[in-house]
Amino acid sequence: MSVTYTLVKECPVTGARAGILHTPHGDVPTPVFMPVGTQATVKTMSPEELKEIGAHIILSNTYHLYLRPGHDIVRDAGGLHQFMNWDRAILTDSGGFQVFSLGALRKIREEGVTFRSHIDGSQHFLSPEKAVEIQEALGSDIAMAFDECAPYPAERTYIQDSLLRTTRWAERCLWAQTRSDQAIFGIVQGGMYPDLRKESAKQLVSLDFPGYAIGGLSVGEPAPLMYEMLEATVPLLPTTKPRYLMGVGTTDYLIEGVKRGIDMFDCVLPTRIARNGTVMTRTGYITVRNAPYARDYGPLEEGCNCYTCRNYSRAYVRHLIKTNEVFGLRLTSYHNLYMLVHFMARIRESILDETFPDVYNEFIARIGQEKEE
Amino acid sequence: MSVTYTLVKECPVTGARAGILHTPHGDVPTPVFMPVGTQATVKTMSPEELKEIGAHIILSNTYHLYLRPGHDIVRDAGGLHQFMNWDRAILTDSGGFQVFSLGALRKIREEGVTFRSHIDGSQHFLSPEKAVEIQEALGSDIAMAFDECAPYPAERTYIQDSLLRTTRWAERCLWAQTRSDQAIFGIVQGGMYPDLRKESAKQLVSLDFPGYAIGGLSVGEPAPLMYEMLEATVPLLPTTKPRYLMGVGTTDYLIEGVKRGIDMFDCVLPTRIARNGTVMTRTGYITVRNAPYARDYGPLEEGCNCYTCRNYSRAYVRHLIKTNEVFGLRLTSYHNLYMLVHFMARIRESILDETFPDVYNEFIARIGQEKEE
Repeated sequence: MSVTYTLVKECPVTGARAGILHTPHGDVPTPVFMPVGTQATVKTMSPEELKEIGAHIILSNTYHLYLRPGHDIVRDAGGLHQFMNWDRAILTDSGGFQVFSLGALRKIREEGVTFRSHIDGSQHFLSPEKAVEIQEALGSDIAMAFDECAPYPAERTYIQDSLLRTTRWAERCLWAQTRSDQAIFGIVQGGMYPDLRKESAKQLVSLDFPGYAIGGLSVGEPAPLMYEMLEATVPLLPTTKPRYLMGVGTTDYLIEGVKRGIDMFDCVLPTRIARNGTVMTRTGYITVRNAPYARDYGPLEEGCNCYTCRNYSRAYVRHLIKTNEVFGLRLTSYHNLYMLVHFMARIRESILDETFPDVYNEFIARIGQEKEE
Repeated sequence: MSVTYTLVKECPVTGARAGILHTPHGDVPTPVFMPVGTQATVKTMSPEELKEIGAHIILSNTYHLYLRPGHDIVRDAGGLHQFMNWDRAILTDSGGFQVFSLGALRKIREEGVTFRSHIDGSQHFLSPEKAVEIQEALGSDIAMAFDECAPYPAERTYIQDSLLRTTRWAERCLWAQTRSDQAIFGIVQGGMYPDLRKESAKQLVSLDFPGYAIGGLSVGEPAPLMYEMLEATVPLLPTTKPRYLMGVGTTDYLIEGVKRGIDMFDCVLPTRIARNGTVMTRTGYITVRNAPYARDYGPLEEGCNCYTCRNYSRAYVRHLIKTNEVFGLRLTSYHNLYMLVHFMARIRESILDETFPDVYNEFIARIGQEKEE
């Protein structure tokens, strides 16, 4: 099996666990936050900077690379690792999430999904087999099964039909697989219905994937509902396989996910808001483009040891953002990714030395305090 | 004197010379190309990357920093070096060029120039004294005298009046100077009239500046006319002082300038065209965003040893440019600046080992050959 998981330590109090994800492009300590490189680049960042930050795995998007530059061009370049000069692990999504997000531009059938490109309106078809073919051409270490990410809210009958189709599609992905150096992860769906989540998890586990993702969350539902779905799902997933909560990337969601047994996370949020001049701190945000920071010569986040915070002031970063300078986007993106990757590394340490519950409680207390202030 | 020049070697055949510019922030081997960091950042690049490329001095723009973030904010940050995290030499222009480029938005009087901001239309006043005050607040190693960069073409009488005023303004700049750790360079004007160029040079030399710039060239005139103006001016400048040709940054202009005794150059061109997906090669350009490069897995320039060319293909760079990814701008900007800085380093080597005429002839032959192809 190309991708395996070693469970290193379980928290004796919560569901949190520390492990190692073994991939053809190196080991990934978990729990882990994966920076997103949608178009074969983590926006504004170089591969060397990602390594400096401590990233061992990144995510890239099948839908985008299929449209531009085309997966054949990436394949002929020697695969995505070679194309983008990243020799550590890569996970690709299936394209499903993007295609379903197109709304009126797509049509779902049992065979697959017909959709129009958001770029030029050209017509395309994506199916389990096609999603595997594209991801095999990209050559990621971890490919995702082609699933339907159902909308929220949605009727129970819609979700039920959708999750059954997602299972059939997941099985077709396994049948279509030809590469032995790429793992396919199944994706649990089931909307906000705990029993449907359980049903989806059981069906996928019976197909014996090397890893499981939980999809269809962080789609607009209240946080407690997301946590409830995690609590319904995770206990049904094998402890010997990695668990990946898709599309989540704020410190509160990360720590709550880890507490419930999640190993992997990804989100565009840290780089997206960075480009708007918003800086993530461990417990919140500051909008450095705002006027109060014009003469603030302190670092973005007090106590942060990242390249940006060691060398530049809020005043300088604000100036760059206000004048639309690319280097400003680099500095905020660097900080935001560093903060999340190191946040996860600190969480992992606390699981290893059995202080995770303390770290968790301290985090919750600090969040509460900041909200009161 | 805060900035001095050591002449290391003169070409026995041409006017080319190798030297060292000594500044409060380190020595700069000359001839040198200075990357432009208009708004306290060389667009898309980090200070570490500029050092990696071999840059020992960069240029920044007084007009832009005066408007945003304001020179007081830069001063309170500890000066421009500290603000932008660049501990090597910085040259600032006087703001004159930008102000005169505003056209209808500015009004010239003996006292100075009233202008409206290109950003918000607010009214401002720039004079020799004010230009020195701002540049002293910025704390650059080399400040430029406040001059009028006359338009091209222009009547002889206009140019004559303008250059006389430029001399009076240059003298006022020296009177206004209070910092001993900053040098002010005078700027020779005189339009496209060789005798007026000579007149301007003589007047400025009599004021004994630590360095001299040649301004008002590369403003739309044919190349031979620029070279004629250099030949009229340079012989009147002292051999013990550095000579700076403003606003020039293509390999043919650089080598022709060096041949005529120029030591310093700057231009926004390499970074500006990089952002449009145009790559500079030693003898020309390639527009990597064009379709023929979609499946071209070779480096931007064959034989180039820069970070971009060592690690990425034309196909990848094209993909990034086509998808508006910041990292693409970083890669093309890096290459273009590396190419020019290393082009100058090779020229300097050839002056030192007395092969400059061969290097020059080979360059001219290759340019001619490419034009025929």
